[in-house]
Amino acid sequence: MNKFLKYGLSLSLAISSLQVIAEEVSFVSDQQRATAEALIENALESDLAYRIVESLTTEIGARMAGTEAEERARVWAKSLGEELGFDRVTVEDFTMPYWNRGEMKVSLISPYEQHLHGTALGGSGASKGSISADVVYFRSINDLKKVKDGDLKGKVAFVDGDKMVKSQTGAGYGPANQRRQIGWQHAERAGAKALLVRSVGSASRRFPHTGMMSSKDGEWAAIPVVALSNPDADQLRRLHALGKKMKVKLKSSAQWKREVSSGNVVMDFIGSEKPEEIVLIAGHLDSWDLGTGAIDDGAGVAITMAAAVLISELPKRPKRTVRVVLFGAEEVGLLGAIAYAEKHAESLKNHVLATESDFGARTVWQLNSNVSKAATLLIDEIGKVLAPLDIVRGGSDVKGGRPDIIPMAAKGVPTIRLSQNGMDYFDFHHTPDDTLDKIIPSELAQNVAAYAATIYLVADSDVEFRRAE
Amino acid sequence: MNKFLKYGLSLSLAISSLQVIAEEVSFVSDQQRATAEALIENALESDLAYRIVESLTTEIGARMAGTEAEERARVWAKSLGEELGFDRVTVEDFTMPYWNRGEMKVSLISPYEQHLHGTALGGSGASKGSISADVVYFRSINDLKKVKDGDLKGKVAFVDGDKMVKSQTGAGYGPANQRRQIGWQHAERAGAKALLVRSVGSASRRFPHTGMMSSKDGEWAAIPVVALSNPDADQLRRLHALGKKMKVKLKSSAQWKREVSSGNVVMDFIGSEKPEEIVLIAGHLDSWDLGTGAIDDGAGVAITMAAAVLISELPKRPKRTVRVVLFGAEEVGLLGAIAYAEKHAESLKNHVLATESDFGARTVWQLNSNVSKAATLLIDEIGKVLAPLDIVRGGSDVKGGRPDIIPMAAKGVPTIRLSQNGMDYFDFHHTPDDTLDKIIPSELAQNVAAYAATIYLVADSDVEFRRAE
Repeated sequence: MNKFLKYGLSLSLAISSLQVIAEEVSFVSDQQRATAEALIENALESDLAYRIVESLTTEIGARMAGTEAEERARVWAKSLGEELGFDRVTVEDFTMPYWNRGEMKVSLISPYEQHLHGTALGGSGASKGSISADVVYFRSINDLKKVKDGDLKGKVAFVDGDKMVKSQTGAGYGPANQRRQIGWQHAERAGAKALLVRSVGSASRRFPHTGMMSSKDGEWAAIPVVALSNPDADQLRRLHALGKKMKVKLKSSAQWKREVSSGNVVMDFIGSEKPEEIVLIAGHLDSWDLGTGAIDDGAGVAITMAAAVLISELPKRPKRTVRVVLFGAEEVGLLGAIAYAEKHAESLKNHVLATESDFGARTVWQLNSNVSKAATLLIDEIGKVLAPLDIVRGGSDVKGGRPDIIPMAAKGVPTIRLSQNGMDYFDFHHTPDDTLDKIIPSELAQNVAAYAATIYLVADSDVEFRRAE
Repeated sequence: MNKFLKYGLSLSLAISSLQVIAEEVSFVSDQQRATAEALIENALESDLAYRIVESLTTEIGARMAGTEAEERARVWAKSLGEELGFDRVTVEDFTMPYWNRGEMKVSLISPYEQHLHGTALGGSGASKGSISADVVYFRSINDLKKVKDGDLKGKVAFVDGDKMVKSQTGAGYGPANQRRQIGWQHAERAGAKALLVRSVGSASRRFPHTGMMSSKDGEWAAIPVVALSNPDADQLRRLHALGKKMKVKLKSSAQWKREVSSGNVVMDFIGSEKPEEIVLIAGHLDSWDLGTGAIDDGAGVAITMAAAVLISELPKRPKRTVRVVLFGAEEVGLLGAIAYAEKHAESLKNHVLATESDFGARTVWQLNSNVSKAATLLIDEIGKVLAPLDIVRGGSDVKGGRPDIIPMAAKGVPTIRLSQNGMDYFDFHHTPDDTLDKIIPSELAQNVAAYAATIYLVADSDVEFRRAE
């Protein structure tokens, strides 16, 4: 029998009917609501999350997946988790291939010399010495896709494109990302010596935006692939429009190295009545190497840890276990998330709900969900509790709870999403500018308030979140 | 007899009396006012200035004083001036000492490794190999000033300080600049191997801010002096506050080289009645090497050239000569301005007025002056003509017309200043982020409108601008 049935609701009822019933059968008791409101108040007054992200970015700094710095971050996280009173803190190691950025330098050498602000994309090959070659301009990734095999022999391809569209939801990222992800396959097929692409990222600032490319049948680019900052790409576009012949010089020592270790840090506050049922909130511990990973994803680490700690300080633990997972190696392909889903394959059925904070530290503005119909009603009620934080209830069929949740969601774990305002996220994301100063303490605290109230109400509820098979 | 007297005004009258008279004796005829208003309208509809700065930053790029790129800029300017119909375009060469940035790399190596975003300051010495040393932290330049001779032997000094205060007037620049200008003298006196300073500049972005240091009795720093970006300086401050021992590694090949050539480009539209009387408007042609010198000072080049060209297109030339000077080697010590004041020493007495646009491309918001009492009344009337552009009449005793005007102002040339809004100027100034995308075409056009109307009314007037000796 499905737990859902204990609420006396029939799955065959239409949503609209369910909503009528919801007004009568509340999923949140007055006491739970009062507790959630107290959590919000406490969270808004607490600087715990800010202190956590300050400590991580200052004491550890950048922490690229598979490096000694990421390992120091795990030691830091375990020690902090124990200090903050988690009942159980475990580091779950896994191994991974390691790509190293090395050194990279790219300059325009004709029509004149100018240093270009670029960075190797994740998975890029090395230059094997220095490359000097004419640039072939492509207005977009679609134009590059049309290039014939062998047509770029001896050349460097430059794929322009449009600056990423800014939006609250980050909707511009996917379309802009294509040139970063698959551009190399076409450049290589056509025989190019290297590929330059306009950075994904919405800032008109002279920082390139890094990130992994996509592999093809397990193979990575053999040629150097370099993202150029938006203003540098603008300059090449204008020179091309003037009919100037462009030549670049490029040197990169990027390469894949041996297998290395990474790990996830798993921290539990054990539930008072149903300890085996897990409400999972996550952030990822690794960052790109260019910045210090404040918004991506020190903020997520801080928000979820602080929210869990605030819940743990209630007079009574919620019924279900609140688990914080700080994933390793997210940036390089969700490697920690995949390892977690494998290692916990048996207990995933006990994962009531999962969500990740991995979209910066600006205020949460929307609550989306992808859970059972009964749990949708609970989320609706949570939406009302969050409304004073300027959070609107969003869709009830929004897939995914952010990147590291994907592998477990694929195994049926229900998800919600507390969506941060992403309007300026891609101004800083994956650039050297992802540093602590971009986090506004009061906005970070609003995130903690939203997480604490939401996760408490989910963990203290008996509602079944899984959709019926 | 002073020309001033032809207005029948006595210099002994108090300002308040003058103002009463001004309402009766207008310095601007109805036709002149109509012409100025037409110039404003034309300027707001013209994209000439934008096309000029786009061409300069795209076709020439960065153009550091004394380099081949600055020479290309002079060729570009001369050719453009002739194309735009100036009556006379002259390049006036001079020689100058040349400092080269070379390559620079600085990293934190303890408590962990992290690349720091820094740049050598103008006049910095080289590292002679690589320096690895403990960091001694100073909260401010005042703290560094107190250090005793020899006390920093074997160390690298880091001078923190506060992030530059943002303001419309740029008032925060001077105070913040001290650590950049004289810090090296104290670090060197105390025996430090190198000096790091928090960048001048108001952006919380990971770009360092370059600029010249001050020489002392003609001597420059022998040690490397490096500006760190604000977020990097923040990080060192936090590590220091945590009591962490910091160590850095630094390598710089900055050095002074042989004497080289630079030059000013002087372009005239000759006056119809008093060709020997010169109304001088200026920008500087050189830029720092990190960006492409769009706001500093491609904008000034574009605004002044476009304003002069618009005036030249009137049915009748104004009475006085309108001269545009594009100075060379401003950034490295006003070398072009000094050369100009020397070369034109004899004719400076015929320079009616001088002003420079060298504060970016945001809208002009204030008109300041430092001219004779009669000319002040004319400027007051010009203020009324500019009011629809959202420009307010400022002070009538504001010294200086921007950097390159200083040497001639010191010789008695009267000045005005059309002050741009500098609120975000120091977010980009002297950083790699000084690129074309920072210029808003409509705001640039407002500048041209203000310059065109103002310079036309000054050049077509008979008022004496010099203050009585």
